[in-house]
Amino acid sequence: MADILTSKDKDYAQWYNDLVIKADLAENSAVRGSMVIKPYGFAIWEKMRDDLDRRFKETGHLNAYFPLFIPKSFLSKEAAHVEGFAKECAVVTHYRLKNDPNGKGVIVDPDAKLEEELIVRPTSETIIWDTYRKWIQSYRDLPLLINQWANVVRWEMRTRLFLRTSEFLWQEGHTAHATKEEAIAEAEQMLEVYADFLESILAVPVLKGVKSESERFAGAVETYCVEALMQDGKALQAGTSHFLGQNFAKAFDVKFATKEGTNEYVWATSWGVSTRLMGALIMSHSDNNGLVLPPKVAPYQVVIIPIYRKDEEFDRVDAAAKEIMADLRKAGISVHYDNRDTYKPGWKFNQYELKGVPVRLAIGPRDLENKQVEMARRDTLQKSPVPMEGLAEHISSTLEDIQNSLLERAKKRTSDATYEVNTWEEFTDAIANRGGFVKAHWDGTPETEKIIKDKTKATIRCIELDAPEEQGTCILTGKPSNRRVVFAKAY
Amino acid sequence: MADILTSKDKDYAQWYNDLVIKADLAENSAVRGSMVIKPYGFAIWEKMRDDLDRRFKETGHLNAYFPLFIPKSFLSKEAAHVEGFAKECAVVTHYRLKNDPNGKGVIVDPDAKLEEELIVRPTSETIIWDTYRKWIQSYRDLPLLINQWANVVRWEMRTRLFLRTSEFLWQEGHTAHATKEEAIAEAEQMLEVYADFLESILAVPVLKGVKSESERFAGAVETYCVEALMQDGKALQAGTSHFLGQNFAKAFDVKFATKEGTNEYVWATSWGVSTRLMGALIMSHSDNNGLVLPPKVAPYQVVIIPIYRKDEEFDRVDAAAKEIMADLRKAGISVHYDNRDTYKPGWKFNQYELKGVPVRLAIGPRDLENKQVEMARRDTLQKSPVPMEGLAEHISSTLEDIQNSLLERAKKRTSDATYEVNTWEEFTDAIANRGGFVKAHWDGTPETEKIIKDKTKATIRCIELDAPEEQGTCILTGKPSNRRVVFAKAY
Repeated sequence: MADILTSKDKDYAQWYNDLVIKADLAENSAVRGSMVIKPYGFAIWEKMRDDLDRRFKETGHLNAYFPLFIPKSFLSKEAAHVEGFAKECAVVTHYRLKNDPNGKGVIVDPDAKLEEELIVRPTSETIIWDTYRKWIQSYRDLPLLINQWANVVRWEMRTRLFLRTSEFLWQEGHTAHATKEEAIAEAEQMLEVYADFLESILAVPVLKGVKSESERFAGAVETYCVEALMQDGKALQAGTSHFLGQNFAKAFDVKFATKEGTNEYVWATSWGVSTRLMGALIMSHSDNNGLVLPPKVAPYQVVIIPIYRKDEEFDRVDAAAKEIMADLRKAGISVHYDNRDTYKPGWKFNQYELKGVPVRLAIGPRDLENKQVEMARRDTLQKSPVPMEGLAEHISSTLEDIQNSLLERAKKRTSDATYEVNTWEEFTDAIANRGGFVKAHWDGTPETEKIIKDKTKATIRCIELDAPEEQGTCILTGKPSNRRVVFAKAY
Repeated sequence: MADILTSKDKDYAQWYNDLVIKADLAENSAVRGSMVIKPYGFAIWEKMRDDLDRRFKETGHLNAYFPLFIPKSFLSKEAAHVEGFAKECAVVTHYRLKNDPNGKGVIVDPDAKLEEELIVRPTSETIIWDTYRKWIQSYRDLPLLINQWANVVRWEMRTRLFLRTSEFLWQEGHTAHATKEEAIAEAEQMLEVYADFLESILAVPVLKGVKSESERFAGAVETYCVEALMQDGKALQAGTSHFLGQNFAKAFDVKFATKEGTNEYVWATSWGVSTRLMGALIMSHSDNNGLVLPPKVAPYQVVIIPIYRKDEEFDRVDAAAKEIMADLRKAGISVHYDNRDTYKPGWKFNQYELKGVPVRLAIGPRDLENKQVEMARRDTLQKSPVPMEGLAEHISSTLEDIQNSLLERAKKRTSDATYEVNTWEEFTDAIANRGGFVKAHWDGTPETEKIIKDKTKATIRCIELDAPEEQGTCILTGKPSNRRVVFAKAY
């Protein structure tokens, strides 16, 4: 396999890119910065999406769909939002093409210029709050708990598959509440939903915290986040949940009549995760042989590969494989049976390792005689014979074990790379040479934060929700600090 | 209820628009031509999408995701495609905004002009076939069976909610095959998938046929379609499936090595249905009280409404309602229990009629005494007492009956409005005064088709797949014809 992917140790970024392409997850398209999500990659995303969607619905949210385009003037309505955010956008200026009178092909029709330009949504707070003004009149209309699955565009100059692309897929929740407390509780609830999803489904452990002021979402009063640590020691922001205060309600004049008869601005949250989660998944578990998938997001959990030389052998092996497939499916296990005669077993072994299928079963004539199959675990790459008798139960418990082991492994890796430093020398050495989540004291000012970032490329990933109070002095300025914050270089 | 919706008889178009808005299905947005799909409307669309998605997967298709943007030059590559199709498009010309130096707000940054404009996809044949060139080398890569759920934009000057909007949601299947026969079989298979979905899930009967040359999709060799008849006698194209020949393979140079070692162009299909199906659903079953939903696409099949005056009454009714809800859910029935004390029962009755909930159960203290509930069927508006004993079974069979009745009713309505005419006088009278599917002889030329359209606004909806051979003469020219075709005014 060594020649399929660049080795992680040699060049982690190149390994990642190789893996995404070779495992058929995604590829670059003819449109700069936009990717094609290939069927295998999309099947993993669908698993994530369906699980998240179920969680959103269980917590009372409904899906809806808002326009792709946002009138340019909307972006200016919330001051912080436009200042901090909405600049690198795709702008629609015309609505018609016509045949080129000077030759072949089409040109933009200059007569079809829009009066007001339309922005391809980079996020939908503005168009949604413009709509909520019509939906919310009274306390009886609250809370309004809505989610949207959509594509968004943020123009990016340097793109990386799944991690940073101009167009990406995501969900964005947008809720409206009668009280501040309720809105904060919602933002915190959704952070918990994300954290639990990441740990229990993607087997990715996370830190939960809030962003410093300068890392906050533009327009938010508080940005909650889940941060995960990748294998190379860099952090990845896996999801954010924002308490927006009354900022968007004021910008779009959304008020409600209270039970008591007064008129108040509505309180808001928004929260989202994106196809970036694919990056978090890949860089948490995978190895030099390719992707390693937790069973709960694997498009198929088991692949069966028949081993045979002669037609007669194939017939017997094929019959047994189909029986096993039926048994496993009955037990709720998803199975792919690859009986193509156009590829050799060795090639298939490599392919499914590359694609991270949690369990591989190989069956040949000798296995049939011994009433067993050969099972290979993707996480450990260990092979072992397993009796046909009770196979489905064995595989079920193996899948459970893989899911748990991946989380434990990632937890250990993360905690091994999470540590405290107390001086500037320790800090710069840690960031430059060791990586990981570096807990250090900070004086709480954006100025200090910026100097640290400029000098080391490390940013404050979060102020952990459960960070204990601890007196200390800022690593840069020596000023007093009440708690440590988490620094890291980040994706 | 008479004052909530405009009456169908008075103004069908206004009734439709009233219904879409009042039943909380969709509304116009601040962006001209783009709608907001509201949670209740989106929940119906999700039911449709999930059922279709299951059917696509069962027939071997995989989902993927391709870019929203298409380089302008791609649209010129397939001659018929650009000629017939890709003109009314949203065009992205810039990728950045900046603060207006002369005042407030943002302006388009003139320095951020794209070298080549990007078109917001009106359909994805071009970008997908540009990708398929990289994915297809050998017969082993075929067939390639891919579907995408996406938003698309076709600039529309006159829009109507769900029926014609600038942005809409759809699925587009794009498949590649080694042989012509296989591609045609795929296009026909997907037409059957659509027809079965429409009849068995939406309770909308359809004609299956092919389009005349002038109604074909731009770039297609043959366009198959399913056509449904709305309550006002106008036809609605509910879905199309195109056999594309080798047109896109040639335009994007997609060849494959055959088993025999030759190099051949690939054969293609594409097929799609959109949020337009919501329009077909509404205009097939609904009445002056609002939406009528087939149980298979109802966000909830049953609504329970408690009837009470005093708190003590509420407690007893509430307990019984919750027990019933649990029983019904156990039987696989989706239930909404509306115990809000902020609205009166009469208001709720109207609301759920407006929203088309198939079965309404009302429970009051007297019902408790009599061990019964009051059941109202949305399709017939009939009310009847039903014993608590065996309620879940009774409701299950009622839901099945509603599903079947709606289809039968729509079938009868369609067949009553489908008839043959033989002369120009009969034809013009039929189109002008009776509506419906009008079967008539046509000489087969685009010229005649165009004259008929210009004079009567009727178009050839389809040439039915099972149309019997029958000698006749064209209603306009008197020239010979071998079979009748179906004319109608259409949405």
